[in-house]
Amino acid sequence: MADNSEKTETTLHGIPASEGIACGQIFLFARNLVEVPIYVVDAAKRCDEEARFERALVQARQQISKIQAQVERNIGQEEARIFDAHLMVLEDQALIGETIREFETTGLNIAACFNRVSTRYIKAFGEIDDEYLRERASDLRDVAQRVLQNLLGQADTSLSKLAGERILVASDISPSDAAALDRSTALAVVTDSGSKTSHAVIVARSMKVPAIVGMHDLTRRVRNGDWAVVDGYAGLVILNPSEETRARYQKIKAHKKTLEAQLLTANREPALTADGVSVSLLANIERADEATLVSDYNAAGVGLYRSEYLFLDTGRIPTEEEQTLAYTRVAEALAPQPVTIRTLDLGGDKLIGGGGGGLQFFASHKEKEENPFLGFRAIRLCLEYTEMFKDQLRAILRASAHGNVRLMYPMISGAEELARANALLEQCKAELRTAGVPFDEALPVGAMIEIPSAAMTVDVLAQSCAFFSIGTNDLIQYLLAIDRVNDRIAHLYEPTHPAVLRTLRRVIDEAHAAKLPVSLCGEVGGDPVLAPLLIGLGIDSLSMTPPLIPAVRYVVRNLTMQQARELADRALALGDPKAIHALCLDFYRDHMSQAGCEVW
Amino acid sequence: MADNSEKTETTLHGIPASEGIACGQIFLFARNLVEVPIYVVDAAKRCDEEARFERALVQARQQISKIQAQVERNIGQEEARIFDAHLMVLEDQALIGETIREFETTGLNIAACFNRVSTRYIKAFGEIDDEYLRERASDLRDVAQRVLQNLLGQADTSLSKLAGERILVASDISPSDAAALDRSTALAVVTDSGSKTSHAVIVARSMKVPAIVGMHDLTRRVRNGDWAVVDGYAGLVILNPSEETRARYQKIKAHKKTLEAQLLTANREPALTADGVSVSLLANIERADEATLVSDYNAAGVGLYRSEYLFLDTGRIPTEEEQTLAYTRVAEALAPQPVTIRTLDLGGDKLIGGGGGGLQFFASHKEKEENPFLGFRAIRLCLEYTEMFKDQLRAILRASAHGNVRLMYPMISGAEELARANALLEQCKAELRTAGVPFDEALPVGAMIEIPSAAMTVDVLAQSCAFFSIGTNDLIQYLLAIDRVNDRIAHLYEPTHPAVLRTLRRVIDEAHAAKLPVSLCGEVGGDPVLAPLLIGLGIDSLSMTPPLIPAVRYVVRNLTMQQARELADRALALGDPKAIHALCLDFYRDHMSQAGCEVW
Repeated sequence: MADNSEKTETTLHGIPASEGIACGQIFLFARNLVEVPIYVVDAAKRCDEEARFERALVQARQQISKIQAQVERNIGQEEARIFDAHLMVLEDQALIGETIREFETTGLNIAACFNRVSTRYIKAFGEIDDEYLRERASDLRDVAQRVLQNLLGQADTSLSKLAGERILVASDISPSDAAALDRSTALAVVTDSGSKTSHAVIVARSMKVPAIVGMHDLTRRVRNGDWAVVDGYAGLVILNPSEETRARYQKIKAHKKTLEAQLLTANREPALTADGVSVSLLANIERADEATLVSDYNAAGVGLYRSEYLFLDTGRIPTEEEQTLAYTRVAEALAPQPVTIRTLDLGGDKLIGGGGGGLQFFASHKEKEENPFLGFRAIRLCLEYTEMFKDQLRAILRASAHGNVRLMYPMISGAEELARANALLEQCKAELRTAGVPFDEALPVGAMIEIPSAAMTVDVLAQSCAFFSIGTNDLIQYLLAIDRVNDRIAHLYEPTHPAVLRTLRRVIDEAHAAKLPVSLCGEVGGDPVLAPLLIGLGIDSLSMTPPLIPAVRYVVRNLTMQQARELADRALALGDPKAIHALCLDFYRDHMSQAGCEVW
Repeated sequence: MADNSEKTETTLHGIPASEGIACGQIFLFARNLVEVPIYVVDAAKRCDEEARFERALVQARQQISKIQAQVERNIGQEEARIFDAHLMVLEDQALIGETIREFETTGLNIAACFNRVSTRYIKAFGEIDDEYLRERASDLRDVAQRVLQNLLGQADTSLSKLAGERILVASDISPSDAAALDRSTALAVVTDSGSKTSHAVIVARSMKVPAIVGMHDLTRRVRNGDWAVVDGYAGLVILNPSEETRARYQKIKAHKKTLEAQLLTANREPALTADGVSVSLLANIERADEATLVSDYNAAGVGLYRSEYLFLDTGRIPTEEEQTLAYTRVAEALAPQPVTIRTLDLGGDKLIGGGGGGLQFFASHKEKEENPFLGFRAIRLCLEYTEMFKDQLRAILRASAHGNVRLMYPMISGAEELARANALLEQCKAELRTAGVPFDEALPVGAMIEIPSAAMTVDVLAQSCAFFSIGTNDLIQYLLAIDRVNDRIAHLYEPTHPAVLRTLRRVIDEAHAAKLPVSLCGEVGGDPVLAPLLIGLGIDSLSMTPPLIPAVRYVVRNLTMQQARELADRALALGDPKAIHALCLDFYRDHMSQAGCEVW
């Protein structure tokens, strides 16, 4: 009976967490613990065993660093942070020392020793009534499993090897597992637990895979292989969908696909407004190999090359040579298109002082700041660790000989920082000249406008730079005093707040008065609903993740500058963020439907 | 020989940490551990013993809460936070449970059992190679000593009972000890350790007692009773000062005192500029009993009554009645002078949700936010916990029947928050009307301008309020994206940044265009060097800690509005924060010396 009733179509409601439609079979995911054999190791092989332990730890470090870099790239810096705690476990001298002692005392295989010691720690941490220690226990559990897998030569039992395309259903998904989700096999992500900001959801969103959370006991209601439709727009899971249901959803999906195809076709056209004004659409990239994406999506160049990923990927500070190679590769691939390289934008918690005044790459809780967003990071850090900074400046200068390179400083708060950074740049130029190394003497130098004080003093900053790029993500956070990663107040983060619009208008007007161009490289730059407003405010170029370019280009091509300016004026006259957003949405829908492109 | 040489005058250099001159005998401070007796407890007295333990814990909680409130009041919210960890130790069920088990098993006195268990924990935490756990060990040590003292009926061996006036010399001073420093006996604070931001230094500064840090081995070079001069301006400790040295320093001190007397005499005069324009000088207060300070320093009323101290002092959420009493007391004492009550300005880490949607007062690491300054606090929190907020609003309304009360919301970021807060206020008014409780129907309602988005939309906010008060401390932090508590970047916190001046000008101009008055209640409001600039920018009133009023009044009385306006215009034309500060300093010195008041 129960089996039969499960075969009828059942619609279950959850919380929509990532848009999209999926139809397919369910894969029920639950992680299994590694089984660890126990045996005595021959005296002759004892040295080997210790070496194996070393290798397993190094391997784990590489695996975690890779996941971290992946998460940082695909999801974000904040989210990648939690792997810092995992890396710290591998540095724990007590854990490692005790394992070695256990090994020396008992003579048992190192996997068994490590398992014993780590289990003891996990138990001890877990028992103490302290949230922090309980989290440490869960970090330790995740890392210990990984080390044991490495020791036992087992493949990672992660989600990366789903048999085929499946709807992934799980009670919850750990950060490590979420990072391993594969866009070629995961059709959708559905979890019993309710967090819309869990890692699995963030990954799903970045993969453009539908996700639903808060399904309570779904894992107990379904079995591997069950069919389902996942409606990520409405937050529905339809078990055992009827033919009609499947057909209906296929139609919705097809409409969406047509729309996308329409956008992609139009994407080969130049980014000109209907009345022929050019709006430069640029790409945000993070790695040298993403240069291909820039041409794939017909971007006019790179508006933001986030250089910190070279640091994050290697897990150490890359040399001047390594940086020169990476930057040159992009500059050459895209020449004569502009490549705007932003200097290191990392927080002090990732880079700490090493011996001899140098810097080491290191993730540490010890350096944890009370308010890292208002802390020691980016240009503030570079102006103190000048040797590291100069390595990067020289690398950018050297790459400038091979293309159309532009240099940009992050987190400038005032003219003094800009002057100090430029003074270091002049030193680097002099050094290269002396050494006979070629570089672009006319290298354009710009400043990010992402701190309110910079936005208020664009006229002053304009005296010492050649262009500006508005970083709206941070600018909005500071203007509104909102950490948008913080769930409790994320709803207050409103890109259409009148203060934001007025600040943008002020920055653009002041820059233009000084005859300098202004780009914009925050998330709003890639939002087709807001693009007309930004264009109306006078922005010269928009820089975004390449896949967002087609939708923005489409809207650019279907408006006139006059319409955009009128929209901006009307928006600026309003005091309510929601009314401003509604105005933009109406404008967008009107223009898209007039263009024969029905927005779904 | 060694003894003899010590008697000659010796000048030692340290780092100046708090200004001032002191001359007196040294008191060498080092905390001793409590000695704990061990004995078997009679079966008949076993229940008593457990009750004694309970009482000792409750007593410790009260002591720490008191210290925390004291530190919060005298030093700051950030600094008071570290006592959260101390309070958490007292909640540790493992520690308490094990002590009881130890007591049940061994039959020994509870002090001995608690000493054993806590020592075991301290040792365990201290041994793990983890900064966080080592800090926990040190918290636990501090708290355990306190609980043992309570159990053994010993008086607190703290600094509060210095024999007489002494120069306090210590290797370092714990937060608990620093909080107990007494301004009537501590002449100066000198430490071997080097932190300028240690608690001892912060307390010294707030007590206006000279302090020097970074003296390395001073504790080993001096003995109790040695004579010394402490020059907190230059960072000098002069051991065994000669008569000439003492006389010289007495003269310097006397000059300083004369200056202060001069200011205090002039303080009875009205706060009018030389050309007769009135600048209202108001008081910042935190407690009802500070109403006397307001009249003592001839303030024109209260520009900022920080209501959160009523919450912090009691360690719980005060009832509507309790709040009504406190607010009424101040309103009555100062009527007809205005009393501006700011609604609760606390972070979410101090108040957490309790059962039934209510709120509890609680200090917790669990709710710790990544960026609390950009987090869930003040009006953001009140608009979610509306019952608590309405209790406060009704209390303020009820107090308004007894004086000239004004109500002010903190951390307003836009018009919607203001509208929602005002809607709740209207509900409260309706409730009181129905209940026949009198209140001031014309109660003026204002908004703090401390978030950049509010500063950018004063014209919009002006439609829903009657006055503004600029909170420069937070406003500057957000404008510059600087957490000024963060040592590594504190130097970037510049009140004279052109972005700050421009923002102030914008706020004042927009408010005046809407015919609303603007006050200013941040730290810069009490700085006599910057007061002329603020007055020149058009600020209507300055609110500050009462003891700062005399110096500000003196400078107000010795300038004309025309001079102040010219100063502001000249400052606004500059782009460099340091040049602006220098301009203000020159102006201040000129005017003070023309007024016959030589600034030392």
